[in-house]
Parts: sequence; structure tokens; C-alpha cells
Amino acid sequence: MNKAIVLSSGGLDSTTAMAMAADQGFEIFSLSFDYGQRHRYELVAARRVADALKAKKHLVVTLDLRTIGGSALTDDIDVPKGRSQEEMRHDIPVTYVPARNTVLLALLLGLAEVLGATDLFIGATAVDYSGYPDCRPGFLRAFEQLAAVATRAGVEGARFRVHAPLLELGKADIIRRGTELGIDLGLTHSCYDPDPTGLACGRCDSCILRRRGFEAAGIPDPTRYVA
Amino acid sequence: MNKAIVLSSGGLDSTTAMAMAADQGFEIFSLSFDYGQRHRYELVAARRVADALKAKKHLVVTLDLRTIGGSALTDDIDVPKGRSQEEMRHDIPVTYVPARNTVLLALLLGLAEVLGATDLFIGATAVDYSGYPDCRPGFLRAFEQLAAVATRAGVEGARFRVHAPLLELGKADIIRRGTELGIDLGLTHSCYDPDPTGLACGRCDSCILRRRGFEAAGIPDPTRYVA
Repeated sequence: MNKAIVLSSGGLDSTTAMAMAADQGFEIFSLSFDYGQRHRYELVAARRVADALKAKKHLVVTLDLRTIGGSALTDDIDVPKGRSQEEMRHDIPVTYVPARNTVLLALLLGLAEVLGATDLFIGATAVDYSGYPDCRPGFLRAFEQLAAVATRAGVEGARFRVHAPLLELGKADIIRRGTELGIDLGLTHSCYDPDPTGLACGRCDSCILRRRGFEAAGIPDPTRYVA
Repeated sequence: MNKAIVLSSGGLDSTTAMAMAADQGFEIFSLSFDYGQRHRYELVAARRVADALKAKKHLVVTLDLRTIGGSALTDDIDVPKGRSQEEMRHDIPVTYVPARNTVLLALLLGLAEVLGATDLFIGATAVDYSGYPDCRPGFLRAFEQLAAVATRAGVEGARFRVHAPLLELGKADIIRRGTELGIDLGLTHSCYDPDPTGLACGRCDSCILRRRGFEAAGIPDPTRYVA
């Protein structure tokens, strides 16, 4: 059984990507990050998802990105609420964490090397990517090229692959695909600004995309929202 | 004044690289990592060095690489002692931390983006690199290519540069260069396995390279070694 290292945020996208990796026959190792995010509740969801998908191992790496700052997800900048889909599509929002996917993929790569794995899975999507540069195909290919020269395994001939199976899918497609694969999407968490009990705000970019996704997919949204 | 983000381990190499950045007129922002290394004492040295070189800011990011493991610097594997220079040159040692420079450069990149900087400095050296793949020129160029597509600044046209001014220098050259630039190299720390007070073991790869470097440079070694 080949091993897949899956970046898990406990959200719809990474959970569906993980289910797809399992469906392709990979043994799942999921990795989440406690990086000082204000929506730390996602770590609870990531653990639930790893259990539900029978991950061989679920690891949480502590990485205090607050030292670096510069983003609404780690700083005291307000999370934007009620933006239109047009605004999300064209702006790089303040919720962008500088170089986040570069950092997280680098850590997935480290774990892959330790476990003798070469397959990394991330739930990046270029359709509803909310303007993040590090969710684009060119970024993923550049990372594979880096991995080949960055690691002992790469130098010895291993070929690392960054799988982003959702890259061409919109949120509704992702929700349909996850549902087809039998995941309970009620286990997942998307909100950037939940209340202390994990209840979703309903108005940040992430909640808006999630709500519209369920609507467009014609699947009842299991999420409980504050507003 | 252009800003330089300098990866600092408090050792000879990163300290000399930092002094070279300062000498080139950059304003210094130094970044160190508390990554569960057994030689955490290097963080004390990194702070001393940042003060001595009048860094504008010195940050320490917590990143618990022990969760990922797989290296003698973070795990319970023994640090190898008394190896020949030949062995160091040809093997990738167990002190290799999987994908470490990829992870650390990614975090430097994040800080650069927050500060509006595009110049990253690391003390990588391909001569006495002790077999680490992520200290090689091909790796550094691949990282620059990644940075261009990984960041908001890159997408908007910024060109990131990874400076590795020691790449062609051996340890003796680095010690000479650092001394010429007026740094007190007694402030630096190299040992992978110091005693609790920070005293160097004298026998790990890093101590051996340091001792021979001072000898070869014909400069008195200010370091106090246990053995």
C-alpha cells in the first residue's frame, strides 16, 4: 500500500481530497497545523475526519506563525465579512497567510521523507481559491521541482508528486464528490471566525463559499451557522 | 535601506552571512527557529549575534519538528562522533533534518513578504556542507523559482533572491571572512550536542569542522570544548 501524506484543515476541500486518496488505495497519513490560527477549532474537525477516514496516523505540528504575522487569520486584523464572490475571485484577501502553502507543503515533504512516501495530497482549488497565489497549478509544479532537489530521497531518485485532485473543481463539485465517497461532511469545519464552541459565523469568505456550494450542489447543508 | 531576512542559527556560517549582508548595506532582520533541536543553546548564541550586529529585529519562530522526527537533531538517535572529513563529505548524515532548509526558507519568505523585503540570506555552504542536499546551488535556484509563484508579492512582480554568500567558501575562509568583518566569533555556537551550559562536545561533525576551520585559518579558536 503506498502512503499518502494529506494536508488536513478539517474543511470540505482537504477532507474530500483525503477521501479521494483513500479511494485511490493510498494509506492515509494526515497532517494538521496548529499555527496560531484564530479558527483553531478546525483542529477538532481534522481529528474527527482522520478517525472517520481511518487514517493510519494523524499528526498535529505546532508552528507559531503569529511571530511572522501579516494575515487576518493570525493577527488582529478583522476577518472580512459579506464579500461578493466577485471580490473574492479577484482580490488576494487579507486572510492570505504569507507563503503558507509553501511552509505547509515543505513540512508534508519532511514527513514524506521520514515515512518513505512520495505522494502529497492537498485540497487546493483554483476555482474558488479566494485569490491565493499558492493554490495555483504553477505553484504546485514548482514545488515538485523543488522537492526533487531539496531532499535526500529526491537526490537518490525519488519523484515527489503533489496531488491536488480538486484543482479544477468548484465548491459544489467538491461537495458532490465528497458526498459520493460517503463522507459525512457535517464533520468538517470551514469558518475563519467561529464562536468559541465552533459555531460557524456564516459571513466570512469561507462560510459564504460553503453555503453557496451546498445550495448549488442541491445537497442539504449540515452546518450550523450563527447568522 | 533594503531589508535582508537572515536565517540565523547562531553558528559561524549564518553569523558570517549576516555580517556580509550588513556590510552590503542591508538592514538586518534575523530569524531563528526553536524546532525541538537538542542543541537549543544555539538560540542564545543567535540572540547575542543579532545584538552584536545591530539587527533591526530578531525573531524566534516555534516550530515543533519533533512531531515529524526522523533526524538525530530532533530524535533520540545518537549524534555521530569522531567521523572523518571523508565520511562527512560523502554521506548524508543522520543529523539531516528532512526538508529543513525548505521549511526554513519558506518561513523566511513569509516574513519577507510581510516586511516588503525580497532578499533572503542563508549561510549554506556547498564545500563543507556535510552532505545536506538542501545546501546546494540547484536547491537555492529552485527555491527562488518557487518564491516567484508562491507569494502575493511574486505574483505582483517582486523578484525574490536567496543569497548564499558562503556557498563557495570552506570553513577556514568563512572564519577569515567573519574575522575581517570584525565579528567576535566567540559569540557563535556550532555544536550539535552541547552540555547543559552550552559547552561544545568537540567531537560531533559540527565541532570537528569548526576546530579544523580555525586551525586552517590560523586564527585562535575562542571556543571552549568539553573534549
